[in-house]
Amino acid sequence: MDKVPTIKDVADRAGVHAATASRALNTATRGMVNTRTVTRVLEAAKALGYAPNSAARSLRTRTSSVAGVIIPDLRNPVFPPIVRGIEDGLREAGYMALLGNTDGDIDRERELFDAMRGRQTDGFILATSRRDDELPATVPTVLVNRRTDTGAVPSVTADNDAGVRMVVRSLVELGHSRIGHVAGPRHLSTGWERYRAFVDATGAESVTFAAAFTEEAGFEATLRLLDAYEGLTAIVAGNDLIALGCYAALASRGLSVPEDVSVTGFNDIPFADRQRPGLTTIRIPHYDIGLESARLLLARIANPAAPAKRIVLPVELITRGSTASPKP
Amino acid sequence: MDKVPTIKDVADRAGVHAATASRALNTATRGMVNTRTVTRVLEAAKALGYAPNSAARSLRTRTSSVAGVIIPDLRNPVFPPIVRGIEDGLREAGYMALLGNTDGDIDRERELFDAMRGRQTDGFILATSRRDDELPATVPTVLVNRRTDTGAVPSVTADNDAGVRMVVRSLVELGHSRIGHVAGPRHLSTGWERYRAFVDATGAESVTFAAAFTEEAGFEATLRLLDAYEGLTAIVAGNDLIALGCYAALASRGLSVPEDVSVTGFNDIPFADRQRPGLTTIRIPHYDIGLESARLLLARIANPAAPAKRIVLPVELITRGSTASPKP
Repeated sequence: MDKVPTIKDVADRAGVHAATASRALNTATRGMVNTRTVTRVLEAAKALGYAPNSAARSLRTRTSSVAGVIIPDLRNPVFPPIVRGIEDGLREAGYMALLGNTDGDIDRERELFDAMRGRQTDGFILATSRRDDELPATVPTVLVNRRTDTGAVPSVTADNDAGVRMVVRSLVELGHSRIGHVAGPRHLSTGWERYRAFVDATGAESVTFAAAFTEEAGFEATLRLLDAYEGLTAIVAGNDLIALGCYAALASRGLSVPEDVSVTGFNDIPFADRQRPGLTTIRIPHYDIGLESARLLLARIANPAAPAKRIVLPVELITRGSTASPKP
Repeated sequence: MDKVPTIKDVADRAGVHAATASRALNTATRGMVNTRTVTRVLEAAKALGYAPNSAARSLRTRTSSVAGVIIPDLRNPVFPPIVRGIEDGLREAGYMALLGNTDGDIDRERELFDAMRGRQTDGFILATSRRDDELPATVPTVLVNRRTDTGAVPSVTADNDAGVRMVVRSLVELGHSRIGHVAGPRHLSTGWERYRAFVDATGAESVTFAAAFTEEAGFEATLRLLDAYEGLTAIVAGNDLIALGCYAALASRGLSVPEDVSVTGFNDIPFADRQRPGLTTIRIPHYDIGLESARLLLARIANPAAPAKRIVLPVELITRGSTASPKP
């Protein structure tokens, strides 16, 4: 193949004028053409692999039915089910997702955003925003999993506040009173909201911040927490990957989970149940968060002047082997 | 926002003619405009959120710098790192990925393919193909992780044959002689190539086929294997998810891994090391498979007449707790 087939190629193959072929291919005008000709044109289109040129249509209507989806890294296990939900939600309206990863790099994010804009993307779903981001108001945008402080941009997130309160309550009921928190980064709403909820629920000051939502950053921040606060019997981690870093840091100090220290996570990523021990965590509705964010974006594209909704989805406590009563 | 800004809007804001604004925005013609005007135009473009209209450019050149990426399901942990590699590979040439999931449904795959074609996608990377698929020859296409029997379409896969031989050799060296295989689906090259390699390496007939590369299908096929072949001391699973199904099926029969039966996987998905026991498996270079497939697609777009290359990437045996010598 050297050339994308055109309407002219289809018409030539079917032995009709291009205008006739065009009418036959368009369901709105097909009735103007006799049935035998329609069949011939459709067969020719199929044989040639002709696809209606939506770049031309896009130029006329200035919409492309494509949404840009920008995330930090697809390899973070929280994102695949969210992206899958986004794709299914977009599909309900005949939209598709252009996907980009930023690795948390602001320049890369800006570059992706501009490149997607240049491809006539109708709107954006961003999982990358910082709390203080000022997002361009020129194109419909929805934040997924994270949000900005001003609330100026619509968002779909899990109920971070309720989740941390559930976790703290369950630890208190087990008898823990010396609870620490390895928080996520404070410039991200997920890190900050969970941190605020932890302080509200416990009144405790025993907190360190991980530099990123990763196992490595969790390991390092847990060591700092253990050095700064003695006698902790439980650690609430900012997310599941940080919790796995807690496991490793505690092991490096000769401490067992949950015998010496209970650990909790947040998200319930795939295989959280297969860790040793299985991780007590908050299950967020990953897929539904993606699905709702796609629907919210489609509503914004239909009516960009609508108020910026914030959708907060409920979460659930999943109790596994990483939490137990403290030693007497 | 109600309207995407045009070059005319930028020109109006900068107080210049549209042709001048266009020259100032195009790096190739910028030298024809005086510096102060260029600055004014660039500032106006930035303030308005103007993006060069690549739908118009696409219509002229008939390329979009977009590749369609079609996979079965992003929630299968083998795909996120592959897709990430694809995105990074496409990015090297200024391309982006339109992503779609099929859940293994042929109609859905066809629908996605047509919808992406309608958006002037320059080419496709497919992780969904069956061995007997006849793929359209009208658009550059590369298969990733899977291939077709005819080899008519370029592909990038892991070395399935070498991987299964490594696994079998390691089991034989441990002293196993009664080895079974829970194969993946035979209509997929990944399932079939590993099955062929198993039969070649062992001469054994103790094989059942799982209906899909999932834990559930692996569970069911393992029960069939155990019923049909007595006294097996090791099971080579078609992939890691099937291996986890083996774990569950063996446990349901009161058999321990590796004390009663050794189990091996294929892929080394994230957290394969955290299973109980940790899974002995073949590590495939997920990210590189994605990266190479993107580069191969870009080469095909540049020269669609080039021969259909098959790239097979090397794999590595990762030994963990799920394999041991059989009981004496």
